[in-house]
Amino acid sequence: LVNTFAAYGKAVGQRVKGAIEAAGAGAIGTMVRSVTSLNDNTPHTGVMYYQDSIPKIPSVALGIQDAEFLSRLIDDGEEIVVNLDLSCQNHEKALSYNIIGEIRGSEFPEEIIVVGGHFDAWDKGQGAHDDGAGCMQAIEVLSIIKQLNLQPKRTIRCVLFTDEEQWQAGAKAYAARSDSLKENHIAAIESDRGVLTPRGFNVTADSTVIDRMQKWLPILRRTGIDWIREGGSGPDIRRIKDAHALIGYVPDNQRYFDYHHSANDTFDQVHAREMELGTAAMTILTWLVSEEGIE
Amino acid sequence: LVNTFAAYGKAVGQRVKGAIEAAGAGAIGTMVRSVTSLNDNTPHTGVMYYQDSIPKIPSVALGIQDAEFLSRLIDDGEEIVVNLDLSCQNHEKALSYNIIGEIRGSEFPEEIIVVGGHFDAWDKGQGAHDDGAGCMQAIEVLSIIKQLNLQPKRTIRCVLFTDEEQWQAGAKAYAARSDSLKENHIAAIESDRGVLTPRGFNVTADSTVIDRMQKWLPILRRTGIDWIREGGSGPDIRRIKDAHALIGYVPDNQRYFDYHHSANDTFDQVHAREMELGTAAMTILTWLVSEEGIE
Repeated sequence: LVNTFAAYGKAVGQRVKGAIEAAGAGAIGTMVRSVTSLNDNTPHTGVMYYQDSIPKIPSVALGIQDAEFLSRLIDDGEEIVVNLDLSCQNHEKALSYNIIGEIRGSEFPEEIIVVGGHFDAWDKGQGAHDDGAGCMQAIEVLSIIKQLNLQPKRTIRCVLFTDEEQWQAGAKAYAARSDSLKENHIAAIESDRGVLTPRGFNVTADSTVIDRMQKWLPILRRTGIDWIREGGSGPDIRRIKDAHALIGYVPDNQRYFDYHHSANDTFDQVHAREMELGTAAMTILTWLVSEEGIE
Repeated sequence: LVNTFAAYGKAVGQRVKGAIEAAGAGAIGTMVRSVTSLNDNTPHTGVMYYQDSIPKIPSVALGIQDAEFLSRLIDDGEEIVVNLDLSCQNHEKALSYNIIGEIRGSEFPEEIIVVGGHFDAWDKGQGAHDDGAGCMQAIEVLSIIKQLNLQPKRTIRCVLFTDEEQWQAGAKAYAARSDSLKENHIAAIESDRGVLTPRGFNVTADSTVIDRMQKWLPILRRTGIDWIREGGSGPDIRRIKDAHALIGYVPDNQRYFDYHHSANDTFDQVHAREMELGTAAMTILTWLVSEEGIE
């Protein structure tokens, strides 16, 4: 599959459900070949589930080269004995917070545009592409508007959601509080697919809204955006059900799973120019929604 | 400028003509801040010219950090003395060759599709993005068709041009010989913009030909190609004047000048997946032209 997110989606069940399936078949532990696009020896990790009715066996992700090495030994008829020495554990839940800042709209302050990312990261690496740099892009949208001394007609709100990786508790809490306040979101934009070179925006909205947004393409093309497509958005904003448009920023995906959820996801792997162009694309789109509305 | 090729084009005159301009104003040497997109200290080099009527003074490109350091000293009012110790020299011209291989067409063997790159490189680095990997993509187009046991209707010819960097002697010799043989090129495709993630194809052709090619976009999109645009092609194939379509493969350009003509242009900076997708795009386009013609 050319789209690495589609490939990941189809393959990752081996890790997510591996322990359940293996234990059900009598295994005492599982080792899964990392679900990654990079042929190195850095384990790629992420969420995995147990089921209460089935033994909770140890489960690990191996680097590609270690996994291939073991495969070769098995192919050669070797008998392999592996000792698993794991230090991972489940901690109690702890209090955490969404981080929110906004520029109030001058004409329609009750009409809110959310721009955000998630502030937590998987434990390996620094969480640069997933999703520290995405959060910085969201902050920069407001920062650029402020630096340019622009006063938006609608409220532009930056939300850095907590706990996307495990339970999406931050997204759920934001949506619940927003519902109770009867807030009116006209759009929400999320950057959570890395900060590689800009390609497009995924949009969940009525087709009339998408048609309208596509008229903005000539402006967005200046930042490298080539398309606006129906479908998808972001893992946090998708819970903001009242928003007229849920919008996911989509950079190129070929390198994303070289970094994602591994020790490779470090800030030196962020290309400043590519990140800045994505920020520019998000800022322009946010401004257009703010000034022109979306319906 | 967002497009780094456009930015390079506007800035590079400072290096190309710097020695002429400076010597004309009485300078005894020139140092130019590297024309690059990467803020490191690796000099970015390339062609520079003298003019016979003006003294031929020494001319060097400095890494960005060295250039900035010298600028700060000047701003601080320091008097700077620089010793230039250069070992560069002009060698005599030497015999070199284009490298050519082809699969003869089964129905219209006299109709030729060239797919190529240039086999020389600037002296710094390994010439990976410029243009070793581009040459490999051109070879792979033929290799993939052969591996798939496909027999093209038209002749598909791989040409690796020599001496693109200095005089384009390979391109000129190919065009002259082709003219003398009265060969009929229906299309030529060149990869000489690095092997980063695929974006589109630049095409110099009649608008009817471009309209026809754009109908192939749904197939090419599978490899990441988002557009086919009028204008431009490649520095070698542009001399094949009889070709009905001159086509430049266009990958993303944000990282290209991080590598180009510097010690950074090494094969470890080639992303295999991105390169392979470009090869797939070029192969599909070549095959479509071969089987369907282009007019």
